[in-house]
Amino acid sequence: MGQHLFKELQRAYGFDEVAIVPGEVTINPDMTSTKLAIGNLSFEIPMMASAMDGTVSPRFATLMHEMGGLGVLNAEGLYCRYDDPYSVLEEITSMPQGEVTKYLQQVYSQPIREELISRRVTEIKENGAVCAVSFTPQNAKRMSPAAVEAGADMVVVQSTVTTARHVSRSYKGLVFSDLMQGLKVPVLVGNCVSYNVALELMETGVDGVLVGVGPGAACTTREVVGVGVPQVTATLECAAAREEYFRRTGRYVAVITDGGIRTGGDLCKAIASGADGVMLGTPFAQAAEAPGRGYNWGMANAHPELPRGTRIKVGTKGTLRQILYGPTSVTDGTQNLVSALKVAMGMCGAYTVRDFHKAEMVIAPSIKTEGKFFQTSG
Amino acid sequence: MGQHLFKELQRAYGFDEVAIVPGEVTINPDMTSTKLAIGNLSFEIPMMASAMDGTVSPRFATLMHEMGGLGVLNAEGLYCRYDDPYSVLEEITSMPQGEVTKYLQQVYSQPIREELISRRVTEIKENGAVCAVSFTPQNAKRMSPAAVEAGADMVVVQSTVTTARHVSRSYKGLVFSDLMQGLKVPVLVGNCVSYNVALELMETGVDGVLVGVGPGAACTTREVVGVGVPQVTATLECAAAREEYFRRTGRYVAVITDGGIRTGGDLCKAIASGADGVMLGTPFAQAAEAPGRGYNWGMANAHPELPRGTRIKVGTKGTLRQILYGPTSVTDGTQNLVSALKVAMGMCGAYTVRDFHKAEMVIAPSIKTEGKFFQTSG
Amino acid sequence: MGQHLFKELQRAYGFDEVAIVPGEVTINPDMTSTKLAIGNLSFEIPMMASAMDGTVSPRFATLMHEMGGLGVLNAEGLYCRYDDPYSVLEEITSMPQGEVTKYLQQVYSQPIREELISRRVTEIKENGAVCAVSFTPQNAKRMSPAAVEAGADMVVVQSTVTTARHVSRSYKGLVFSDLMQGLKVPVLVGNCVSYNVALELMETGVDGVLVGVGPGAACTTREVVGVGVPQVTATLECAAAREEYFRRTGRYVAVITDGGIRTGGDLCKAIASGADGVMLGTPFAQAAEAPGRGYNWGMANAHPELPRGTRIKVGTKGTLRQILYGPTSVTDGTQNLVSALKVAMGMCGAYTVRDFHKAEMVIAPSIKTEGKFFQTSG
Amino acid sequence: MGQHLFKELQRAYGFDEVAIVPGEVTINPDMTSTKLAIGNLSFEIPMMASAMDGTVSPRFATLMHEMGGLGVLNAEGLYCRYDDPYSVLEEITSMPQGEVTKYLQQVYSQPIREELISRRVTEIKENGAVCAVSFTPQNAKRMSPAAVEAGADMVVVQSTVTTARHVSRSYKGLVFSDLMQGLKVPVLVGNCVSYNVALELMETGVDGVLVGVGPGAACTTREVVGVGVPQVTATLECAAAREEYFRRTGRYVAVITDGGIRTGGDLCKAIASGADGVMLGTPFAQAAEAPGRGYNWGMANAHPELPRGTRIKVGTKGTLRQILYGPTSVTDGTQNLVSALKVAMGMCGAYTVRDFHKAEMVIAPSIKTEGKFFQTSG
Repeated sequence: MGQHLFKELQRAYGFDEVAIVPGEVTINPDMTSTKLAIGNLSFEIPMMASAMDGTVSPRFATLMHEMGGLGVLNAEGLYCRYDDPYSVLEEITSMPQGEVTKYLQQVYSQPIREELISRRVTEIKENGAVCAVSFTPQNAKRMSPAAVEAGADMVVVQSTVTTARHVSRSYKGLVFSDLMQGLKVPVLVGNCVSYNVALELMETGVDGVLVGVGPGAACTTREVVGVGVPQVTATLECAAAREEYFRRTGRYVAVITDGGIRTGGDLCKAIASGADGVMLGTPFAQAAEAPGRGYNWGMANAHPELPRGTRIKVGTKGTLRQILYGPTSVTDGTQNLVSALKVAMGMCGAYTVRDFHKAEMVIAPSIKTEGKFFQTSG
Repeated sequence: MGQHLFKELQRAYGFDEVAIVPGEVTINPDMTSTKLAIGNLSFEIPMMASAMDGTVSPRFATLMHEMGGLGVLNAEGLYCRYDDPYSVLEEITSMPQGEVTKYLQQVYSQPIREELISRRVTEIKENGAVCAVSFTPQNAKRMSPAAVEAGADMVVVQSTVTTARHVSRSYKGLVFSDLMQGLKVPVLVGNCVSYNVALELMETGVDGVLVGVGPGAACTTREVVGVGVPQVTATLECAAAREEYFRRTGRYVAVITDGGIRTGGDLCKAIASGADGVMLGTPFAQAAEAPGRGYNWGMANAHPELPRGTRIKVGTKGTLRQILYGPTSVTDGTQNLVSALKVAMGMCGAYTVRDFHKAEMVIAPSIKTEGKFFQTSG
Repeated sequence: MGQHLFKELQRAYGFDEVAIVPGEVTINPDMTSTKLAIGNLSFEIPMMASAMDGTVSPRFATLMHEMGGLGVLNAEGLYCRYDDPYSVLEEITSMPQGEVTKYLQQVYSQPIREELISRRVTEIKENGAVCAVSFTPQNAKRMSPAAVEAGADMVVVQSTVTTARHVSRSYKGLVFSDLMQGLKVPVLVGNCVSYNVALELMETGVDGVLVGVGPGAACTTREVVGVGVPQVTATLECAAAREEYFRRTGRYVAVITDGGIRTGGDLCKAIASGADGVMLGTPFAQAAEAPGRGYNWGMANAHPELPRGTRIKVGTKGTLRQILYGPTSVTDGTQNLVSALKVAMGMCGAYTVRDFHKAEMVIAPSIKTEGKFFQTSG
Repeated sequence: MGQHLFKELQRAYGFDEVAIVPGEVTINPDMTSTKLAIGNLSFEIPMMASAMDGTVSPRFATLMHEMGGLGVLNAEGLYCRYDDPYSVLEEITSMPQGEVTKYLQQVYSQPIREELISRRVTEIKENGAVCAVSFTPQNAKRMSPAAVEAGADMVVVQSTVTTARHVSRSYKGLVFSDLMQGLKVPVLVGNCVSYNVALELMETGVDGVLVGVGPGAACTTREVVGVGVPQVTATLECAAAREEYFRRTGRYVAVITDGGIRTGGDLCKAIASGADGVMLGTPFAQAAEAPGRGYNWGMANAHPELPRGTRIKVGTKGTLRQILYGPTSVTDGTQNLVSALKVAMGMCGAYTVRDFHKAEMVIAPSIKTEGKFFQTSG
């Protein structure tokens, strides 16, 4: 056994399997900066809310801006298909679980309307917020100019798996360098998980890549089609591509880990693995202000043959402010995420996110096995 | 410790431990072909239904053909022991669990009748379907000519562990090259799990090998006798043998992974590991049209000293069409298997199954640990 | 991390982590021989019942002999402390769990009586059975001559951890070569887990070594004191010592894996790992004829500072004959153990136990993860 | 995958993943010595009780002394903030779980009073016990002289992560060599987990280092901020630093493993990994005499941005004497810890703790998988 293998398999790691090693120098958390830059845009905290309809509404995008981060609006979602998306949201979030998948398939078959995209962008911009909108590759070239014209500050082009060289019979494959030339705003593209794909995407001129295929809970990619790479390894690969691309060109492309992050610990590990920022779904869908009212669901409509994302009950955990900055009496790591990052950076002596990229990490078993004798009382 | 070991142990991997890495080029799923060839036979989809009495009846074999795949009839099963197997099936599927193992032992002690084999083959052929029948090595040489004469298009010779060099006192060991000469139809042989055995079987002239010992749930081999190899490693080994044999002879022998596949993800991983096709039991036994009506049971009667397979409740999940092609609102990967394969192939830029063999894979922890905070509501 | 480690750690494996690979030649199970030799004694099946009071009584030892194996009587147990041990057994097996540990501590503080040892040996010999008795190292030299004089055919010297070089203040350490000279019967010694200790024990002239520290369920060694080696690695180490010792001297010393074996699969893996035989506690305590009536308990009295073994409910699974030879309708691997071994040997083309030592093994995840979608009905 | 990684990850191990291999020579447990020296202080048993308010009160510190160990008083805890800490303890331990985190945050915001530190030290010294008091780095230089003047025999300086080179804006970073010069008593510093940090701390002149970041159950470091190293690897690293420092200077600095130890097995593994002693929280909080009355809570107030430790129900398991020395009828390894250590040392032929450092260890799966068929009755 093992001498005649058809191919070699490398080990890949997820958040639950690694831990960050404290540094040789420690600094006080208040001395750390968590700034993130994507193209000409800059954010106080390196956190983006996923372009999911249960997570980011125009109002939530505004709130994310006020908190120092960025909420990405799904320009192909309910807000851009319905004049009144809120009554649809009401239906989705009050329907019995048995009926909801069918209903989701139905509401997402309504057409995307470009004038609604413009209207939502305007709503966000009128509140003074940075506005990012998300398209699938099929629609990006056609629809994004209108969004930018309406004031969008960033375009996100996202599908389950995105490469610089997609081949399609039904539509002309998106050429990212073409898209770049037409748009004057930063473009963030994904998702990818490997060095070569990340590097090729960077070479098309994009300003950031989203990292993550098959790691998230609202995403059924890995169970259904077997495709996926755990996030720590995926981030390490794409960060290596960013360093190589930076070495060659002097241009620094942001690497954003997207998916599978549920706690402050996961977030810190993503950034210590080389991410410049993170994109979170569930943790923000758990905010009291999230449009999903304790539910979240995927926009897994890129492959019409496969079932769309299930509606998942995520619960409501606190206000967005509590989730990001506390105060909180929750100790499971799902709140006070910014403070968690600053404390971890302090423990590793990291003044900036790029310093934190140098933190040492180890492969370590999940903490769960260590607490087996304890239960919280009552 | 470890310096004086009696023997070295290599690590072997199962489906839950690996994942497929997306490719550098992606293509649209509608551009992929999932064709499988075994000898002169060709199938639109690389999926076979196991020769188990709860899975494949003559009618189910016809249905598999209509769907583009192949259902293998167990020529030593109830259909070829009883004029009216349906009343026996009725008993098996309505009996309390406590009594059924005894009953199974009893009904499978009735003799196999060759005229019933011919009758079942005729039933399948009259419906216009490709007909494959399965024998144990003990009976293959004696009984398969009649089946072929009645019209069978393929003979499957299957036992828990099959080698080209079996030694027996009680019957003359089957010499596969002898069997080949007598039959004018493709022969599929198994099960095996290692490079050397697969290569030796190929050298006897067989058209395909079945891969899998001890991975499946209805099979008690691994718990009872400790023998078994997880399916990813077993498939990698046998695929390597196929490549070597092809290099030497120019003849391409199909490698069919049999056992342990429950979801689209498993199926995709089997093929990405080098399989040309897969043989499924439980997923097809879960079809509304399956004769087992939500139950399945093994034909583990090759070793009379050991207990026969237990009857296992697998439930009914949908029609065979739904299981293979959808539409479905189930998102756990047990339905819409063909679409899952085409989507995965698209993500890896694979136009054909043989292209998909080149997909990169990683060792990755099971997805279950990633979703721990979620529950579907209600 | 990892460059300055205080010491290196090698990986060790247990039964749940390995599987046996089928061989390139297979033979029919009825062609295999499972014979075991220890010194001048020979047994049809390589299975011994542990010297535990809930497992082996004089009557059970006789029964083991009739079945082709060997039951070892604990010469320091209840049978050799009480004229009427059966009323004590009655108490132990009918007492509430909360009171039994105290009671066990009390009954085992009664003195061992040499005339009772002789009486029990005589009982076993009168039934025509091979008689083996077990002592701790403290008592072996003083008490074993009487047992041999009464007719014992084998002496087992056993403590949790046994070395050829034990140092004690309270009693003169047992010198095994001295013991050997005084006794004319084979001596089996243990337990040990490593190459060097096994080799040193073999060099003292013993006829067999028992392998296993901390793997078993009725043994609290690993949880309480952190000491233990999983059985596959322990067996591989001691088998390597046997081969080296055989190479040097031409004398073949039996290696008996003792502890942690619960199923036919475990048993097959122990022997494929290099064991010549196995010693089982729980599987035999589950026999209808076992004196423990569905309970078992350790004789962990070598360390008076630590609590003695708890009484563990093991249940009654069938007759000893069913456990060894079937027939059975149980499919979890706990019955029909001899057939399981013969089938596994057949799958590996092994005519003898020593042939089976050459079987290939792989490190493979436990089978449990593979069956997750199934439940037996009702 | 894997060829372009941003950084390398080494594997780290926790207690549940390793086991101790018995030695080639064994000795009787009564021949072992478990002595621990820190600076000029010497202890019969290498066990310290953590500076947690639910674990060590002045009275409990006295009791630990009588048992041969050391209880460290948290000089920033309730005893040094309140004239009558006992009424606060009464509140904490009788309050519903839902209200207690808030209450803890409130009571720990009261000021630390230096005269109370002196009073508590005096209480402990009047009972004839060795007195150790614990400070955070922020307060150590200012507050420890008064404690020493009042009679404290040892100063512990402890925060979640401590390095020799901490940078802070809000207070002048503690220079350990300065602290050393001012104090005439041994200083124990922590926590750290890596070779370099341990070595740098030793070079400042401290007498001992505490090892452990993120392994313990009452500590939320790993879940919340992702930082932590499993204790076996952390101990191996710091022990390697101690050896190197000893080689260079001839001064032997004690390495104390702190956190994550729940059983005798864990304790033995910590010491076999190179620790000179251990610091335990929960096992001592489970003593009938512990001030927490079956509860324990962290003093995680070094980072005001993050929530303080939750109150955790640990239960009451027995007297401190039973926990350390038995007798006990508990067999899960949580009692009789000193005997467990002596038995393990005996099994490895270790006369002293430093001998035990040479014991071989293996990476071995947790014992839990081995006992799956057993349940204790009733």
